[in-house]
Amino acid sequence: MKAARWHGRRDVRVEEVPVPTPGRGEALLRVTLCGICGTDLEEYRHGPLVIPADRPHPLTGRRAPLTMGHEFFGVVAALGPDVQGLREGDRVVPDIVLFCNACVFCRRHQYALCEKWAAIGLHCDGGLAEYVAVPAFTCVPMPDSLSDAEGALVEPTEVAVRAVNKAPPRLGDVVAVLGGGPIGLLTLQVSRAAGAGEVVLIEPRPTRRALALELGAAAALDPADPDWMETLRRRAGGLGPDVVFECAGRPDSASLAIRIARKGGRIVLVGITGGQVPVDTLDLLIGEKTVIGTIQHHYDEDLPAAVRLLADGRVRGLPLVTAEIPLGDVVRGGFEALTAPGNEHLKILVNPRA
Amino acid sequence: MKAARWHGRRDVRVEEVPVPTPGRGEALLRVTLCGICGTDLEEYRHGPLVIPADRPHPLTGRRAPLTMGHEFFGVVAALGPDVQGLREGDRVVPDIVLFCNACVFCRRHQYALCEKWAAIGLHCDGGLAEYVAVPAFTCVPMPDSLSDAEGALVEPTEVAVRAVNKAPPRLGDVVAVLGGGPIGLLTLQVSRAAGAGEVVLIEPRPTRRALALELGAAAALDPADPDWMETLRRRAGGLGPDVVFECAGRPDSASLAIRIARKGGRIVLVGITGGQVPVDTLDLLIGEKTVIGTIQHHYDEDLPAAVRLLADGRVRGLPLVTAEIPLGDVVRGGFEALTAPGNEHLKILVNPRA
Repeated sequence: MKAARWHGRRDVRVEEVPVPTPGRGEALLRVTLCGICGTDLEEYRHGPLVIPADRPHPLTGRRAPLTMGHEFFGVVAALGPDVQGLREGDRVVPDIVLFCNACVFCRRHQYALCEKWAAIGLHCDGGLAEYVAVPAFTCVPMPDSLSDAEGALVEPTEVAVRAVNKAPPRLGDVVAVLGGGPIGLLTLQVSRAAGAGEVVLIEPRPTRRALALELGAAAALDPADPDWMETLRRRAGGLGPDVVFECAGRPDSASLAIRIARKGGRIVLVGITGGQVPVDTLDLLIGEKTVIGTIQHHYDEDLPAAVRLLADGRVRGLPLVTAEIPLGDVVRGGFEALTAPGNEHLKILVNPRA
Repeated sequence: MKAARWHGRRDVRVEEVPVPTPGRGEALLRVTLCGICGTDLEEYRHGPLVIPADRPHPLTGRRAPLTMGHEFFGVVAALGPDVQGLREGDRVVPDIVLFCNACVFCRRHQYALCEKWAAIGLHCDGGLAEYVAVPAFTCVPMPDSLSDAEGALVEPTEVAVRAVNKAPPRLGDVVAVLGGGPIGLLTLQVSRAAGAGEVVLIEPRPTRRALALELGAAAALDPADPDWMETLRRRAGGLGPDVVFECAGRPDSASLAIRIARKGGRIVLVGITGGQVPVDTLDLLIGEKTVIGTIQHHYDEDLPAAVRLLADGRVRGLPLVTAEIPLGDVVRGGFEALTAPGNEHLKILVNPRA
């Protein structure tokens, strides 16, 4: 079968590999569509970051080259031993986080914190391929009402669900979302589904601000506008947002997210940033603010919720899809297109069978 | 009457001032004892920090010179108009946080977040004096079982109660407290009262470590010991503490507190630090950690709890008291003694009538 494999920085190759054999408890999925994630881009441009290059991953035993892709779903093509509740032909979406089931966190059922956690498509072969093997027990049936393109957005929606569940808005709360990429636009919609009074998106690109308004944002502010903070404060009762989701993944926006939250407010750091970020602790103390990190998702807490929100239309995924490309074009039409200066892409979906 | 008044940095004068007249809803207390707080020391050495020097405070209308002291209790000497439930001779402790009762936070009953909040002894005249006027409605009766010295420790115990209530340990949790000053030693005891499995104190001074063990710490570690982090991790199931309370008030210990917490752990910043503290956001994200600021207290949430914990002995205050001095000696025997290099003081209490 064809698979897009990470060999090194700026070295992703579409090559012929054997179809995986599903192991015990695994299902083999024939991949319908697979999205390209910001994390994939980082691995392409600056990797290896989380992809194991030097030594095998402690849970999966795998190292590069690896098949990328963790935003996928598919149809059950074969089942390994000891699988119950799935049949060939089922259209399902798995959770892509693997856990050891043995560490102290797994024993506490906090699988998302597993000490050896791995992600399909980063620490073992993923869904930028014709077939992928996944744990069967996490697979959730895809409702017929969910289109293929929407199905490929379940994974990033899981990220948004987990983020919002870390600081659920109270009814009527003013929520700010920093960053209007796919995660920001999904967090905006999930916040509204969770009862936020109004959601304000902060984003420099006009096309993304326009889309945010279409997706239910009460306002979309340009951080280049010198009045944006005052506008936000005015919308938030003269204070600041009750909850702030940092979805831009820039170090300066983490500091900003903490600063703009109201006293007693909650800040969730969703966007991945490295390095030391300067935080004004006196503001955090005097404001009695709460800062929460989120990164993972959980097959039982977040996955079914994401499927439901997309299926019933409270989260709209299709407007985020800016291209659908064949697997053979994944480098030029995918990774390169998404990193090209001035590109207006949001989510590019890859069809391994096109 | 005599009062210790802040006139400027390193300029606190014990001088004769009129006895305050209790206003509407106020009680006049004859002060029994008043402790000297770290905040008082900061104002003495580096002030004005929160003391209003240039212009009147928006809530109290007062500016320096002001009578210091916010860790006090006393006996009701007189009542202003419209006071119910208090009688002359009652031995009571007030909450020293004043609020406007009009801002959005007060309307939500989040008085501790009041936009105009003030503290008695920092923004208006406090308890380093023979008499002080306080809001009557916050006054809690002091149980007879509580000694005078313990009574003067109610306010810092309130700080510890609020901090622990921000991240209540689960039964069996391993809690780390950074810093063995009065707030750290109280937070240690309040954490135990809240059900912590074991509390580990991190503190460079041997006398404070010894006292921590006496007050119930499972271990007291010296941060100069190169193995202290490994020892802590071993005690905490090979991970890190479930909850970390930063009570040292140093910028580097805020970063440290976040770093040593386990994945999914909670960190409460109690010690007051200014400036920009570098935080490893990737650790916070991947660890799904929660960082919470706390600074205030609340007359109904924190004050009665603090009184109860001291009265029933679950929090021991007396071992923290290292001196009791007359008001006339407050500068030399109080502020200067507490700031002298190598001094081993914890809490110095001031007797305005000695």
